Amino acid sequence: MATTPPTRSPELRKDPVTNQWVIFSPARAKRPSDFKSKSPENPNNNSSSCPFCIGNEHQCAPEIFRVPPDPNWKLRVIENLYPALSRKLDHPNGQNDDSSSELSGLGWVVAGFGFHDVVIETPVHSVQLSDLDPSEIGDVLIAYKRRIEQIKQFDSIKYIQVFKNHGASAGASMSHSHSQMLSLPIVPPSVSTRLNSMKEHFNRTGKCSLCQVQSKDLLINETSRFFSIAPYASSFPFEIWIIPRDHSSHFDELDNKKAVDLGGLLKLILKKMALQLNNPPFNFMIHTSPVQVTDSELPYSHWFLQIIPQLTGVGGFELGSGCYINPVFPDDAAKILRELNVPI
Amino acid sequence: MATTPPTRSPELRKDPVTNQWVIFSPARAKRPSDFKSKSPENPNNNSSSCPFCIGNEHQCAPEIFRVPPDPNWKLRVIENLYPALSRKLDHPNGQNDDSSSELSGLGWVVAGFGFHDVVIETPVHSVQLSDLDPSEIGDVLIAYKRRIEQIKQFDSIKYIQVFKNHGASAGASMSHSHSQMLSLPIVPPSVSTRLNSMKEHFNRTGKCSLCQVQSKDLLINETSRFFSIAPYASSFPFEIWIIPRDHSSHFDELDNKKAVDLGGLLKLILKKMALQLNNPPFNFMIHTSPVQVTDSELPYSHWFLQIIPQLTGVGGFELGSGCYINPVFPDDAAKILRELNVPI
Repeated sequence: MATTPPTRSPELRKDPVTNQWVIFSPARAKRPSDFKSKSPENPNNNSSSCPFCIGNEHQCAPEIFRVPPDPNWKLRVIENLYPALSRKLDHPNGQNDDSSSELSGLGWVVAGFGFHDVVIETPVHSVQLSDLDPSEIGDVLIAYKRRIEQIKQFDSIKYIQVFKNHGASAGASMSHSHSQMLSLPIVPPSVSTRLNSMKEHFNRTGKCSLCQVQSKDLLINETSRFFSIAPYASSFPFEIWIIPRDHSSHFDELDNKKAVDLGGLLKLILKKMALQLNNPPFNFMIHTSPVQVTDSELPYSHWFLQIIPQLTGVGGFELGSGCYINPVFPDDAAKILRELNVPI
Repeated sequence: MATTPPTRSPELRKDPVTNQWVIFSPARAKRPSDFKSKSPENPNNNSSSCPFCIGNEHQCAPEIFRVPPDPNWKLRVIENLYPALSRKLDHPNGQNDDSSSELSGLGWVVAGFGFHDVVIETPVHSVQLSDLDPSEIGDVLIAYKRRIEQIKQFDSIKYIQVFKNHGASAGASMSHSHSQMLSLPIVPPSVSTRLNSMKEHFNRTGKCSLCQVQSKDLLINETSRFFSIAPYASSFPFEIWIIPRDHSSHFDELDNKKAVDLGGLLKLILKKMALQLNNPPFNFMIHTSPVQVTDSELPYSHWFLQIIPQLTGVGGFELGSGCYINPVFPDDAAKILRELNVPI
């Protein structure tokens, strides 16, 4: 398996944001630059049967809005035809919070009220998100923001998870480029853990842990408003975070100008990832703050976008311990991606 | 996707042991009884090139022990040829604990000292763990215990994760039946979370959360010393826990008699899973207590074995939120497995 003698000893790192331990174990890897996806995405170009294509709107679940609001739309936000949560259940506003979840004899239970929406990022089947212009990607980001602002009106929604699955093995059941928004009646434990960890860092250092990440070795690319890094305790090889330079607790604080700037950086990073890693399946997730936060939480709450290319599988060790084994040190991944030139 | 109209509304459940929220969303599923693996394991029967086969011992990393200790071994415990952690790094006994991990400018770091061992469960390439007799499976379990007792002598080891990956998509790089033991210089966060959650339950109810699980609806099979259930907040469809009936904090309290009893139940459950779910890839993990625990932690620390068949993928929602979406309610899974007859 190893093609070169390992030059670094294994070490364990704990991230100050996620609070997760990661084992860096270069002896198990080929050279970082040899990492390639073994199951690159071959997009399905059969658009005649795709309900997300323009002209097939009638095959979809109800639309929430489209941009622009006419037949020649560029993006649509629709309901998920197979929603994980139901918007039809009772949701007594303000009463269905975590503390009022019912304790059965076996554990806690909450009715599955929530919204599960789909953002169709382009009318054209063969176009991927990274093919769009920075301003068009910005439009997708602003659509997330607009939908978040609608959903925030429901007091019983505690957290909104925006995510994208690209490629079947990354969880995408449709090949037409899209992302999803799942609005939850609870704050997920990984969000609570992240906020507690960032609070601890803030209490110890007086600084926000994401404002502080400015390591040259971990930097990939930057713009005037955002920077991208391979995080210090990356759980996955070539994991990438895009972080707003100015302190901001919630993704929906994004304005149009920043959205175009972020669109450009996201496009560049996705292009680099595809080129370096052989067009891997990937996920991205927006890590924002819960809908309801107190003023005291704002100084250490800083949203970011996490991108994970699917290069390695997960086995019993990860499922059992919650720790990941990463064969690629993040400064190696950052250097490779930083120095890569892509034609844009 | 849905072949029958959904009969149950989605709900969110939080497990009192793992403290994880799970979304049960039956509308996204086919009927529970229709769940089958799409990538059943086709065991590779080419034993001539397999280093784990009897006669090929010289191709392996060094042996730790074999049972029985002669050329006709039935199982071997060896070092992993590509260890995630290094047994050669400095490990100042008793000083390398979590609290003394070094804080760099970017996060916490600990030298990657640890043991990564492999348990070869059978000398024969084509034999799977569930093909062995209960007493032979008991021998494998007792080998885990014996190796744990050796490793416990190192004060710098804080937790020992025993796990098995069966099938390439469950993380097994070798098709010859084996399991692994990864001994860590830290307590993984999921272990701390589990113990805190069990402590909270104990403080609230005065009872151990695993002694208390006796729901008829969740029961699959039981013996005089162990019982198996589909847990109340199963993260995955057809997830199964095997729990010792008597309160016991550490797996290595297992004695020979209990090992044979557990071997029989594990065999039955693995056979049922293979028959019902089309021989799926799977993982099992032993969830035990940290090596060093205080007396006050013992009343609520109860080990168990978790089995996860690989039937569904993980996407951006799960990676982002740490919550899982499970299309099968555990009482449905338990009923199907409980009522299944397998020839043993």
